[in-house]
Amino acid sequence: MPHSTLPGVIELLDLPGVRATRDYILATDERTLRDQVELTEIPAPPFGEEARGQRLAELLEEAGLVEVRTDEIGNVVGVRHGRETGAPLVLAAHLDTVFPAGTDLKVGIEDGVLRAPGISDDGRGLAALLAVARALSETGVTTRRPILFVGTVGEEGNGDLRGVKHLFRDGGPAHDACAFISLDGAGIRTVVNRGLGARRFRVVVRGRGGHSWVDRGMSNPIHALGRAIGALASWPPPSQPAVSLTISRFGGGTSVNTIPVEAWAELDVRSESERHLEVAEERVRAALNRSVDEENSGATDDSQRTDLQITLIGVRPPGATDADSPLVEAALTVSRILEVEASLVSSSTDANLPMSLGIPAITLGAGGEAGGAHTLEEWYRNTRGPEGVCRALYTVLLVAGVS
Amino acid sequence: MPHSTLPGVIELLDLPGVRATRDYILATDERTLRDQVELTEIPAPPFGEEARGQRLAELLEEAGLVEVRTDEIGNVVGVRHGRETGAPLVLAAHLDTVFPAGTDLKVGIEDGVLRAPGISDDGRGLAALLAVARALSETGVTTRRPILFVGTVGEEGNGDLRGVKHLFRDGGPAHDACAFISLDGAGIRTVVNRGLGARRFRVVVRGRGGHSWVDRGMSNPIHALGRAIGALASWPPPSQPAVSLTISRFGGGTSVNTIPVEAWAELDVRSESERHLEVAEERVRAALNRSVDEENSGATDDSQRTDLQITLIGVRPPGATDADSPLVEAALTVSRILEVEASLVSSSTDANLPMSLGIPAITLGAGGEAGGAHTLEEWYRNTRGPEGVCRALYTVLLVAGVS
Repeated sequence: MPHSTLPGVIELLDLPGVRATRDYILATDERTLRDQVELTEIPAPPFGEEARGQRLAELLEEAGLVEVRTDEIGNVVGVRHGRETGAPLVLAAHLDTVFPAGTDLKVGIEDGVLRAPGISDDGRGLAALLAVARALSETGVTTRRPILFVGTVGEEGNGDLRGVKHLFRDGGPAHDACAFISLDGAGIRTVVNRGLGARRFRVVVRGRGGHSWVDRGMSNPIHALGRAIGALASWPPPSQPAVSLTISRFGGGTSVNTIPVEAWAELDVRSESERHLEVAEERVRAALNRSVDEENSGATDDSQRTDLQITLIGVRPPGATDADSPLVEAALTVSRILEVEASLVSSSTDANLPMSLGIPAITLGAGGEAGGAHTLEEWYRNTRGPEGVCRALYTVLLVAGVS
Repeated sequence: MPHSTLPGVIELLDLPGVRATRDYILATDERTLRDQVELTEIPAPPFGEEARGQRLAELLEEAGLVEVRTDEIGNVVGVRHGRETGAPLVLAAHLDTVFPAGTDLKVGIEDGVLRAPGISDDGRGLAALLAVARALSETGVTTRRPILFVGTVGEEGNGDLRGVKHLFRDGGPAHDACAFISLDGAGIRTVVNRGLGARRFRVVVRGRGGHSWVDRGMSNPIHALGRAIGALASWPPPSQPAVSLTISRFGGGTSVNTIPVEAWAELDVRSESERHLEVAEERVRAALNRSVDEENSGATDDSQRTDLQITLIGVRPPGATDADSPLVEAALTVSRILEVEASLVSSSTDANLPMSLGIPAITLGAGGEAGGAHTLEEWYRNTRGPEGVCRALYTVLLVAGVS
């Protein structure tokens, strides 16, 4: 990993305007935390991001962005023009949470710890997005390239990256982006430059069902699915890069003495390698088909057989941004200037999508510390919080350029 | 199998009063079907038989029984006194169904076919129970022994025969019964004289859970259970007598990208042989223990392991009534008089319990034809329906005696 300082970085950060942005971020740290609390308390369940998006749009407009709008699928997009037109830099945080409608989102504050579902993931990212926009407006720093500020929908789970997919579609506002930076959760010690891919499946096995004794020998959907789960559980998946294969949910059956009519399961397969995802998908399909065939082998007529249905319910393409690309170097250099030795890691975030398209993309934590992501016990502490915002801002300035 | 006609059978059935019962049953066939429809449409899910029981009690009282009552656990019991006191004959049908609360029970009638969950099992048995009671009352036939008419709770699934167990408990109203006849479902061609035993288990596997990628390799309760289901599904169980092994329900997991904290399953094992039930139980326990161990083999510390809990949730003792016992001979003889060559078969019904206590017990279908038991597509056709009721009635008269 190259550790040279990018030429001109020190000079750039020494520009009076740039110094002023840092002062502004430090001075308005309380405001950033207030935004974080306010946005976290607005429900944004999967496929229900409207209310939070609407408030983010108001705040982005107040922060001096222009052309602020909510697009067809709910992404909130605002522009800060550069001195030049052309390929924009995209800075994004995601609106959605994993928490269903009705979850108590009230933020509790005690001993400097903020507690609420989503307070870090991605309440922190959204607050940092606003802080960066305000710092540029208030200090009058203008970049060379235009910057798109975006709150995306559908980053989590079955949202299937639909927000960022829409943004980067042919003709979408980010289709020609020069780079993409996602602010996702807390932290300052990592730079995500590899995008973990995922394929997700829902499997349903259906049969005729019957009485556990009278109809013994009839193909049983739970048995069929159990055979497949057993086979997949003992499969040694490829390594380098690793693959995870998780059967995460299953269900079926109505009563203890009834051969069930239906059994279903959901599977999650992840890897940084598209090829390994393909291998795993082949394995999943083969195990399911073989297991259903095995279960059907005792059937004496077709009506006793079970049928298999496999639905692909999610695709996250894997991808990577080269460790020596200007974007990654910028993030690492800025980290070092802030006296943080950041490491390059892999994760599954909005950045996956531009990575898979060959557009340089990274994901940064937005400062502070956090834990319990995706649980009701999620918490955030503002240790080095403003420095996380500065790290994002400086990386933006290095990539977008300050003339 | 002895096929001699019991001494005095022809003479008994030729008594004017007994002839009149047959005429009554044939003449009131429509009423019997109306009862069947009405009772089937009253929900009686597992552990929720009150409403159907209450209506049955009203109908049994209208049918001329005395001392009609609902006992502590929900059985409906009514008495028809005999000329003598002493050990009663018990005639029973079961109130409960396998269908959960909320199931649509509306009976559809088309081309002579009645369709509804539970229309045969045991709507038909309950309707026949009423028809037998009414025929005796309306024709004034009095038996030598008293007869207990019973609607039992808990015949199905996890009900675990709790109704009939309560009836035959020490000091229970049937503890000294001379014989037990269960009317269960449709049909006229079989006499159940062997009681299929069952053991039922609930299995819970628990682990720490986690993120499908970050925590990959952690022991997964769904994987552990799937391994066991796969192993059990391909187990060739003992034969002669046969064993059925059914994993009938399972569930677990919260979100597609989360290693679940818990997975559970319910299993049903059946055989006429107590020894084979033991063998199967050993196999179930061994497969579960081995599968959890296999799943745990990758755990690097104890907190990553999953734990297994197996609970025996139901025991149905196997049993038999000798083929040459007076009760079985009575049922076969009556069948023959009705020009049916009935065969002796094995099933798991309320009769298991008295059989296991050494009390002569059989189960009879209550006439008609049916299919799809324990499914939403259950149907009933009234072919030889009244003859099924007559078969039950005559068997009762032969065993209880007509003076």
